[in-house]
Amino acid sequence: MSTAATRLKRLLFGRPLPSDRLEHERLNKKTALAVLSSDAISSVAYATDQILFVLGGAMGLAAVAYVVPISAVIVGLLVLVGLSYRQTIFAYPGGGGSYTVAKENLGVGAGLVAAAALLTDYILTVAVSISSGVAAITSAYPTLAPHAVALCLASILVLGVVNLRGVRESGAAFSVPTYVFVVAMLLLIGTGVWRMGSGHELADTLTMKRASVGQPPLAGFAFAYLLMRGFAEGCAAMTGTEAISNGVMAFKAPAQRNAAVTLSWMVSILAAFFLGVSFLAQHYRVMPTADQTVLSILGHHVFGGGPLYFLLQYSTFAVLVLAANTAFADFPRLGSILAHDRYLPRQLAARGDRLAFSNGIIMLAVVAALLVWIFRGNTNALVPLYALGVFVCFTLSQAGMVQHWRRSHEPGWRWRMVLNGGGAAATAVVAVIQIVTKFAEGGWIVVVLIPLLIWMLVAIHRHYVRFAKEIAYTGQAPLMFLHHTVLVPVGEITKASAGALVYATAISEDVRAVYIEVDPAHTATMRARWDAWDVGVDLVVLPSPYRSVLRPLVGYVNDLQRAGETDLITIVVPEVVPHRWWEHLLHNKTALYIRTAFLFRPSVVVTNVPFLLGRAGRLRDLFGHDAQLERAPTEREVEVALT
Amino acid sequence: MSTAATRLKRLLFGRPLPSDRLEHERLNKKTALAVLSSDAISSVAYATDQILFVLGGAMGLAAVAYVVPISAVIVGLLVLVGLSYRQTIFAYPGGGGSYTVAKENLGVGAGLVAAAALLTDYILTVAVSISSGVAAITSAYPTLAPHAVALCLASILVLGVVNLRGVRESGAAFSVPTYVFVVAMLLLIGTGVWRMGSGHELADTLTMKRASVGQPPLAGFAFAYLLMRGFAEGCAAMTGTEAISNGVMAFKAPAQRNAAVTLSWMVSILAAFFLGVSFLAQHYRVMPTADQTVLSILGHHVFGGGPLYFLLQYSTFAVLVLAANTAFADFPRLGSILAHDRYLPRQLAARGDRLAFSNGIIMLAVVAALLVWIFRGNTNALVPLYALGVFVCFTLSQAGMVQHWRRSHEPGWRWRMVLNGGGAAATAVVAVIQIVTKFAEGGWIVVVLIPLLIWMLVAIHRHYVRFAKEIAYTGQAPLMFLHHTVLVPVGEITKASAGALVYATAISEDVRAVYIEVDPAHTATMRARWDAWDVGVDLVVLPSPYRSVLRPLVGYVNDLQRAGETDLITIVVPEVVPHRWWEHLLHNKTALYIRTAFLFRPSVVVTNVPFLLGRAGRLRDLFGHDAQLERAPTEREVEVALT
Repeated sequence: MSTAATRLKRLLFGRPLPSDRLEHERLNKKTALAVLSSDAISSVAYATDQILFVLGGAMGLAAVAYVVPISAVIVGLLVLVGLSYRQTIFAYPGGGGSYTVAKENLGVGAGLVAAAALLTDYILTVAVSISSGVAAITSAYPTLAPHAVALCLASILVLGVVNLRGVRESGAAFSVPTYVFVVAMLLLIGTGVWRMGSGHELADTLTMKRASVGQPPLAGFAFAYLLMRGFAEGCAAMTGTEAISNGVMAFKAPAQRNAAVTLSWMVSILAAFFLGVSFLAQHYRVMPTADQTVLSILGHHVFGGGPLYFLLQYSTFAVLVLAANTAFADFPRLGSILAHDRYLPRQLAARGDRLAFSNGIIMLAVVAALLVWIFRGNTNALVPLYALGVFVCFTLSQAGMVQHWRRSHEPGWRWRMVLNGGGAAATAVVAVIQIVTKFAEGGWIVVVLIPLLIWMLVAIHRHYVRFAKEIAYTGQAPLMFLHHTVLVPVGEITKASAGALVYATAISEDVRAVYIEVDPAHTATMRARWDAWDVGVDLVVLPSPYRSVLRPLVGYVNDLQRAGETDLITIVVPEVVPHRWWEHLLHNKTALYIRTAFLFRPSVVVTNVPFLLGRAGRLRDLFGHDAQLERAPTEREVEVALT
Repeated sequence: MSTAATRLKRLLFGRPLPSDRLEHERLNKKTALAVLSSDAISSVAYATDQILFVLGGAMGLAAVAYVVPISAVIVGLLVLVGLSYRQTIFAYPGGGGSYTVAKENLGVGAGLVAAAALLTDYILTVAVSISSGVAAITSAYPTLAPHAVALCLASILVLGVVNLRGVRESGAAFSVPTYVFVVAMLLLIGTGVWRMGSGHELADTLTMKRASVGQPPLAGFAFAYLLMRGFAEGCAAMTGTEAISNGVMAFKAPAQRNAAVTLSWMVSILAAFFLGVSFLAQHYRVMPTADQTVLSILGHHVFGGGPLYFLLQYSTFAVLVLAANTAFADFPRLGSILAHDRYLPRQLAARGDRLAFSNGIIMLAVVAALLVWIFRGNTNALVPLYALGVFVCFTLSQAGMVQHWRRSHEPGWRWRMVLNGGGAAATAVVAVIQIVTKFAEGGWIVVVLIPLLIWMLVAIHRHYVRFAKEIAYTGQAPLMFLHHTVLVPVGEITKASAGALVYATAISEDVRAVYIEVDPAHTATMRARWDAWDVGVDLVVLPSPYRSVLRPLVGYVNDLQRAGETDLITIVVPEVVPHRWWEHLLHNKTALYIRTAFLFRPSVVVTNVPFLLGRAGRLRDLFGHDAQLERAPTEREVEVALT
């Protein structure tokens, strides 16, 4: 196992870890806030941009007048959803993921819809967060802009490797970027508001060129529709709200209480930041451009391009990478739950060498990288695919909670049900708005993808159920008495065929050497040699007028089985294993062909007895050493053979 | 075997043919001339072009003055080589290929040089003949010119398929194109000469544009070198001269006599046509262009573009395809001889379903197609690679004949030796001229390729010799008494593991079920179930703290072997064989991993017992039917098991 590949694997991913090192680190509130909120809080890096991007495209700079009202509506929705999830925390202390809640309360169908929506969502969390994080960097260093896609792919690669190593030091190390970002945002909003009051207001100098072009005024339905689109895009701010209620079990005791408090903090911070950025954008009349995010334009203006500006950009990048990292924890975990429930391949269920769910991590990294590559790392193009899945999950999760309260009849179940019902209704409406307004912008991809994913989950489940049924064995101890015939195809008398014959005689009394007669002229010689060898095994000659090795063998096996003289046939094929790769081309793949020909035939087993061609001068046959084939049996061997 | 692929194969290549249909059709002189001369005679389609192409590039239309003298020198050489090969016919009635003659008389080294030169040559025969044949078609239909490469590839594909079917109807059917071409050429030369005498001479109207541009006069060494280059390129006319002496065994009795007469005819026809075309080209001041071959320009002028012109072009194409077809017979035949002598992979030695050497045909078609594709079907670019190999073969073959006469001392051996020696010397000089003058034009490719090929032949030979030595078995009947331990990895009690256990107990007394303990919590349950099952096989539990299935198993096998308690270990692995391709993704490839892990370990055999998932509703396990696993043994089975 100590090959170059193994050594490289060790270097990148570290030594394997034993299973007993799998323990759960319990987080205090401050650390939990940092770790579990990065996804939600980091949304402020792109949510305001999306509203302005959509509205600005149609109405130019006039758009800034609508960004605060729209943000306020979203914050209202956020508070409602936050309260709703607060209830989930108390109802599901073991972590109430949308899949679990929907499946338990609404049935398997709803659970699968939630699962499919979540899977797409985690992938998009990585793609959007990384694209947006790289945009923060390229906003600060415009010369890097042409390399944005490469930077995105490199970031995903690094995240993948780090997660394959298994992230043991999660808590403390991970809280730094979030808190630095929080501080930078507080400074930005504080300074922005302060400078505003001090008469430092600037105006249109910060606007994008497109915005100065006069746009025809909009009215009536078109205007309302546009506002709805802006609202739908801005809802990207709400992604990640469910993280804390999913992770209750990670909190220190009293876990539920602590989680609920942390959730309140998170919602407050997110609401404040989102409103703050939107307010500043309106006041300073900021429009995002292709090269500059709203945060970058604001930071540049408010901080004047000094070290604080770069701190803002770096910490934005860091918190977005952290947000992507939460998907690297959640996707494989959901994958393993789904695999455990037999909806995904069982390879996703097992932990790898480093106790991480390696296959899930690799799958997520590959799909997210593909997505970033297809959309050229463009956040604006990726976001329309994003929030839809999130809102489907919100809706199902809260609808599940409604059912939960109705069944449980716990104290206060009525008003709790109403609260969750309100959340479910509101997010359902938003989900519909998402589908309608974003459909043409790329939302259709998700609308097509989620049913496809569900279909896949169901197909996989059907297979495993059928498989379990087919393979289930309820009988008693299996039958032990069989007539077992062993066939050994031989071309010449060589060490390889001698090895195969030794093996054959070790596993059965009824051994027959089979010679495929391609050239009848050679048969007599072969038979003479065989008789002279006197190995105590009959040589069966099968004519092959069409020069095929397989057809006569298949025919002979057919005849044996039809005659009913045997219960089980083993074909023992000597297989030459060359030392160098190109030497494989110099040998017929007869062993492989024979295996394939009999793969689907009951009561026939094909066994390859490898014959190893010299490696580093050592000649080995089946028994490791020549001499052994020629020596007389020892007493013990005779004893064993006769008992 | 009756799958869609098999049916397509049948449709394209026909039903398999039995070996006894392999008989040799004997040819009379007329048919033999047509079949064996197409390669040589068809050279007139491009030889004159090559001389003019080279000279015209340097001296413009003045080149036509030198084409007849150069052609005359080549014809002189042709006659000398023809006489030389006439002697080979009588010395090697079994067919005297360059490889055979060189190897027998000059040793293995010379034989391998000839073999490598011949292999490159056959490939180039296909590439050059097909490119030139397609040029005859595109000369007649200029609109097809952009599709020249596609036409070439299609022609090679058709040739490949026809040859894979096995060409039974060779003789008669194949003589038609050659004779039509001969008639068309006779008409062309006759009419051309007649119209010349009747005052119909035209002049510069037929010249290419490039030719009318004044060229600086050449003198001294540069001039001589240019003539040499023209001569070297024109030598492409001589390719194929050896075909008749290689094919003596195909002639009706008296084979040698008939072959010699046919050779004389062939040389005469080729000489007459080559000189005729060169003479007409000089007289009518013809220069080939990128779109028009010399034959096409002449034909158009002499026949006035009527049906005779198209007959000439079609028959040129046909005879060139026939020339390529001879390579499709010769290359696989040489390949099979080399494979038989262990210089090429043994897969090339065997005849396929239709008695053709299928692998050689496929290899030739693929390499020639690649070559045509790389050189965009440009005959002028391909020819510089061509004749070099031919002249190396001529030289080696005739030098071999010198040695042959010196050894044999047959009547007249002295003058025969002188004749062959003269031929060898002349062709050796030409070979040197070829290398020098064509090196920069692409000849270097062949100069590099031939040594590479020789190195490959030698490496393959070394492998087979070492292989034969390693595998040779001279001992007596192999040892029959071994302690054989069988391990069956089990995860749960299923039909698959039951099948594997049935097989295991059928092949040994010492069977141990091995349970890899990934999750210690589950071990007690498993052990309880196992004991309840009461199958009479011990369950060995191997802890796996790192969750690997392989490592504990490898460790256990190491321990067993180190303890010396066993001679032979078989690991019987149940292998689930799903019905649909995607279902493979849903099952761990444990069986494959175990096989790979133990592939290079002596005294360990890995056997997969397939468990087939339901196909078309039929549930099969190892023994074809459920019930069999649960019924009591029959009397016969008990009897067999106890004896």
